[in-house]
Amino acid sequence: MKSIEWNGTEVIILDQTKLPTSVEYLHCTDWRQVAEAIKMLRIRGAPAIGVSAAYGLILAFRESFHRGGSSVEILTEFRAFAETLRQTRPTAVNLMWAIDRVLQVVDTFTGEINELDEILVKEAIAIDTEDVALNVSMAKHGATLFQDKENYRILTHCNAGALATAGIGTALGVIREVHAQGRLERVYADETRPLLQGSRLTAFELHQDGIPVTLQTDNMAGYAMQQGLIDAVIVGADRITLEGDVANKIGTYSVAVLAKHHNIPFYVAAPYSTFDFSMETGNNIPIEMRNPQEVLQFQGVPSAPQDIEVLNPAFDVTPHELVTAIITEEGVLRPPFIDSIRGLQEKKMK
Amino acid sequence: MKSIEWNGTEVIILDQTKLPTSVEYLHCTDWRQVAEAIKMLRIRGAPAIGVSAAYGLILAFRESFHRGGSSVEILTEFRAFAETLRQTRPTAVNLMWAIDRVLQVVDTFTGEINELDEILVKEAIAIDTEDVALNVSMAKHGATLFQDKENYRILTHCNAGALATAGIGTALGVIREVHAQGRLERVYADETRPLLQGSRLTAFELHQDGIPVTLQTDNMAGYAMQQGLIDAVIVGADRITLEGDVANKIGTYSVAVLAKHHNIPFYVAAPYSTFDFSMETGNNIPIEMRNPQEVLQFQGVPSAPQDIEVLNPAFDVTPHELVTAIITEEGVLRPPFIDSIRGLQEKKMK
Repeated sequence: MKSIEWNGTEVIILDQTKLPTSVEYLHCTDWRQVAEAIKMLRIRGAPAIGVSAAYGLILAFRESFHRGGSSVEILTEFRAFAETLRQTRPTAVNLMWAIDRVLQVVDTFTGEINELDEILVKEAIAIDTEDVALNVSMAKHGATLFQDKENYRILTHCNAGALATAGIGTALGVIREVHAQGRLERVYADETRPLLQGSRLTAFELHQDGIPVTLQTDNMAGYAMQQGLIDAVIVGADRITLEGDVANKIGTYSVAVLAKHHNIPFYVAAPYSTFDFSMETGNNIPIEMRNPQEVLQFQGVPSAPQDIEVLNPAFDVTPHELVTAIITEEGVLRPPFIDSIRGLQEKKMK
Repeated sequence: MKSIEWNGTEVIILDQTKLPTSVEYLHCTDWRQVAEAIKMLRIRGAPAIGVSAAYGLILAFRESFHRGGSSVEILTEFRAFAETLRQTRPTAVNLMWAIDRVLQVVDTFTGEINELDEILVKEAIAIDTEDVALNVSMAKHGATLFQDKENYRILTHCNAGALATAGIGTALGVIREVHAQGRLERVYADETRPLLQGSRLTAFELHQDGIPVTLQTDNMAGYAMQQGLIDAVIVGADRITLEGDVANKIGTYSVAVLAKHHNIPFYVAAPYSTFDFSMETGNNIPIEMRNPQEVLQFQGVPSAPQDIEVLNPAFDVTPHELVTAIITEEGVLRPPFIDSIRGLQEKKMK
């Protein structure tokens, strides 16, 4: 199940808000449809958002190019479109990373404007296919953490799977590899309110792949750990700072505290594009606050008085002290993260 | 808003599964309707379940009495009905306590069988009105813990309010008193999946009383504490053991661990009838496992693949090490609870 595809003229997005009841694809021919899909979480997951933005920028360029004008006029409008795309979601840094990467290509391009289309297509496809490969590398590295027994029970929160990436997933990529190696007993999936990415997406994609999964409400994570049902936690990330603080779906921080209390390792799986080397600590990560209606109702059914106050942060930040290791495509990073993350940066900048 | 009433012939139960969208009352004329209401959580909350059972037993006695037969036959059937009522929910000990209290009255009754009706009515009303008074005492004692400032922000989980008792509530009774004393800034209510007693009941009853309340999903509790939004946690209880281990709605344990991590006091408010003096540790408390459908959907709307494994414990146990104090109608109990709970027992047995 591909979360996103490019067919030469359209960005085809699996509408994840409709899952698991209905499998519907959006055929976007306008970058604004891509922006709307990101904003409304039709496509979500930090790496998948990055890939969508890269494909969306092809549509943005084509619109500006077909409107005509000088190269400068075309690129000025294109850059404005890119900035609008950048505003769709503030927390996941992969979105900014992908847009910056595409803009960098444009900035350094010296050919004729009509040749830029092909360059942008190439770059977007590169970002997409690289993500597929990164997931495989992360999975291999991550699986080295699960070699001591044959029946690992792993808890995950939200969806860091195929639906969150262009490939097999970050956290779920590792889980798929542990399963392929015959070392997985079961995944415990937090349902992940308010938007239920755990029950709608993680349980769905693991079940489709025949990987044993038990669904639980978010408030059962502590109970499951207390009962000795969990050997490790793996989650994805939307942004990781230089010190190793991790922004991820709301509730991740609570799971990390619970894991610490129960001496259960807490792993984060994320590619290079999730690291924000410009930010030292997680205190500075902007946290997107979303519509109260997401909390006041459950799948469209009102579940509370409609005129009350609501807290609805989309993400929280887990401080590095609670993180056991970070799984990247280059290997497993260990504390002190300030050193291992610098090391990753240097390796990649070479 | 009364959760339960007796009008001389009917047990009138506010159907809490319909809240907050609809306010509907069940007029039970058969004890089996009361049993069904308890089982299906139409009425819930440990103290309210106890009161319901006491009223239900009047209907049970009337059925046996009207069927006729010897006193022995009538009481044998009545006791069998009482045992069925006892089986409706296994975790909350107040149900057992109320049934035992009524059976004790029957066992020691020496008059004519036709006089027993009046005795049972008196006992049930006593249990009901005592609960109202207990709530007020608990509220007064609990409020002494909130005297250091004027803007307490208190997190609660599930519903331990008017809807869970015959009176103003246990945890919410304390919160109401803190509010009445002008010392409450705001309540943070966990929505409490899967059945959403926090959003449907706690947010509803506090909002109706004009008490400021912010609703959050369960997985936001850690975030709220991390952001410094929470001064204290108060929850109710379904059973408290001699050592001070507390069974309460699933998710309570996670909140207690989070509170500990953030150095936030974690209070439990519960009357004498919630203590199980026959049980030393919380490991022995039976935990009710409920229907997977509660996790796989909400109010009939599916939120996950329908054929996957589900974990659905209705309760968890918070070990006494995580409890700062237990608020009872006799005062605030402090650790070591093994001593203070013994003290409560001795005081009550006098």
